[in-house]
Amino acid sequence: MSKFENYLQVVQHCDHVPYSSNGLTSQGELPLLLEDGAMVGTLLPPVTKALIDYNTTLVPAPFTFSDNGVKFNAHVQTMDQRTQVVSDLMTKWRLDKAFPALAGWRDELYAVYGSDGLPAFVMERAATPLFGVATFGVHLNVFTRDQGQIKMWVARRALTKPTWPGALDNCVAGGIPYTYSTKETVMKECDEEASIPESISQNAWNAGVVCYYTSTEHGLQPEYQYVYDLELPIDFQPTPKDGEVECFYLWDLEQVKQHMLKGEFKPNCALVAIDFMVRHGFITADNEPDYINISAHLHRKLEFPGPKKST
Amino acid sequence: MSKFENYLQVVQHCDHVPYSSNGLTSQGELPLLLEDGAMVGTLLPPVTKALIDYNTTLVPAPFTFSDNGVKFNAHVQTMDQRTQVVSDLMTKWRLDKAFPALAGWRDELYAVYGSDGLPAFVMERAATPLFGVATFGVHLNVFTRDQGQIKMWVARRALTKPTWPGALDNCVAGGIPYTYSTKETVMKECDEEASIPESISQNAWNAGVVCYYTSTEHGLQPEYQYVYDLELPIDFQPTPKDGEVECFYLWDLEQVKQHMLKGEFKPNCALVAIDFMVRHGFITADNEPDYINISAHLHRKLEFPGPKKST
Repeated sequence: MSKFENYLQVVQHCDHVPYSSNGLTSQGELPLLLEDGAMVGTLLPPVTKALIDYNTTLVPAPFTFSDNGVKFNAHVQTMDQRTQVVSDLMTKWRLDKAFPALAGWRDELYAVYGSDGLPAFVMERAATPLFGVATFGVHLNVFTRDQGQIKMWVARRALTKPTWPGALDNCVAGGIPYTYSTKETVMKECDEEASIPESISQNAWNAGVVCYYTSTEHGLQPEYQYVYDLELPIDFQPTPKDGEVECFYLWDLEQVKQHMLKGEFKPNCALVAIDFMVRHGFITADNEPDYINISAHLHRKLEFPGPKKST
Repeated sequence: MSKFENYLQVVQHCDHVPYSSNGLTSQGELPLLLEDGAMVGTLLPPVTKALIDYNTTLVPAPFTFSDNGVKFNAHVQTMDQRTQVVSDLMTKWRLDKAFPALAGWRDELYAVYGSDGLPAFVMERAATPLFGVATFGVHLNVFTRDQGQIKMWVARRALTKPTWPGALDNCVAGGIPYTYSTKETVMKECDEEASIPESISQNAWNAGVVCYYTSTEHGLQPEYQYVYDLELPIDFQPTPKDGEVECFYLWDLEQVKQHMLKGEFKPNCALVAIDFMVRHGFITADNEPDYINISAHLHRKLEFPGPKKST
């Protein structure tokens, strides 16, 4: 039994936040604004309410609210100050068990970029959905050629993962820790998740960026995934190392498609695999009726600033 | 002397129609609507005025105007009827020398798609900018590997071409004639423009679609270009055949970049070459500050329907 009838349904399952003219959905969310008016995130009503409550307990209040959105107050001017304010807030909410999202605290910092492309502040990864800020990761398609035919290494996520346990995943993926480049992140994760040594992972190349706007029970999640490809020698096999991956499969693209239509992939990983299938001529304008629409969902224009310098 | 400082300026030179919430620019254009309300094109004021004048000379009038846009009248119901109405109109305007765009008449039919993804009508290629309808083409990146390094075959357009004579172009490109598939179009153009035989051109693969919204003195031009890649053996050389191409150059990607920044490429061909550079890891998130913005310009979401079936 298939969960999805076609690739279009697969991409729409992930990139499911409706398009709008101002970047806002109709869920009554409040824009998180920087001093120059740039919108860097959105808060859903329960978060807005909790933030108003928190703000009134502090003097001077770190945030200021208006009809347009919520801003940092005038005395919170530098990246370090904004980072401290957000850290204090999220630590308090974590202790209070205010939002389930914070139960997944990772001690991993993500950058939130301003319209100048520089980090406006950094914040705990698990808290990003509460502020609805854009996040940035790398996903690596690992493939080999068997008598000319492309086969893809697909990971099954460990059953102990807090999110999407047991789901299918791209061979290697990870969030970009603050101060890492995308290539450094790929090489680090290649070693940790798949035992791929630097001598091989250095051959991975950046092949694009997949952008989509998804949401979970934790909040709105506009995401950018830098896509890398890595061709392995036919005799090299990725092996789990850090416990994030249960096992790896080597499948031809028709097999990948069948597992995808059954709904076995983590939704955003399916997008990355579809992008691979598009770039390598497996999904084509001649064999896929929704080709243009699928490409649009892989390259959603997000209304939140990204980095201008390498991440 | 460079015309452009960076890739972002190159892509913005082509994809230069401003984003808007309703798909309309601020040039006072009139939407061309189908019966179900789908907007399939836009008319700039001089075209609207000429169409109103033309419409009043015929009984029954083929078009009907409202504040929302212009539609075919109730008695123009089928694809054939719409095609005939547009053909009569453009033939009249061509004879009257009403618009310079029609001096480039090619006797080549382009399909205009409705929201069901089927052709609503077909019309002469040279007339498409007057109606601002979306057009569809194929562009082929032809490359080879010289000791592992990618080199790209770049075409110089014939000096006798009516548009962009002498400019640099992708190795092979062409509009998709009504009834042709994208792959058939690529193979036809490979033979005609570059003397690449079917035995080689059949290896070309569809690697994505580049979408942008440009305009010329003839009107607004939302365009979809299906991108193909073809790797040639190092000893095979494309050769001009039908007079469309002056000569071919074999350049490494750094050379392609330098000619591009000098403004030597036909603008949309530069986009296709940049998309190639992105997919093959020459332009990366780590070496290109505007990576995300460039990707967005290569994948503009256009508000006009495209084909749902293979073209």
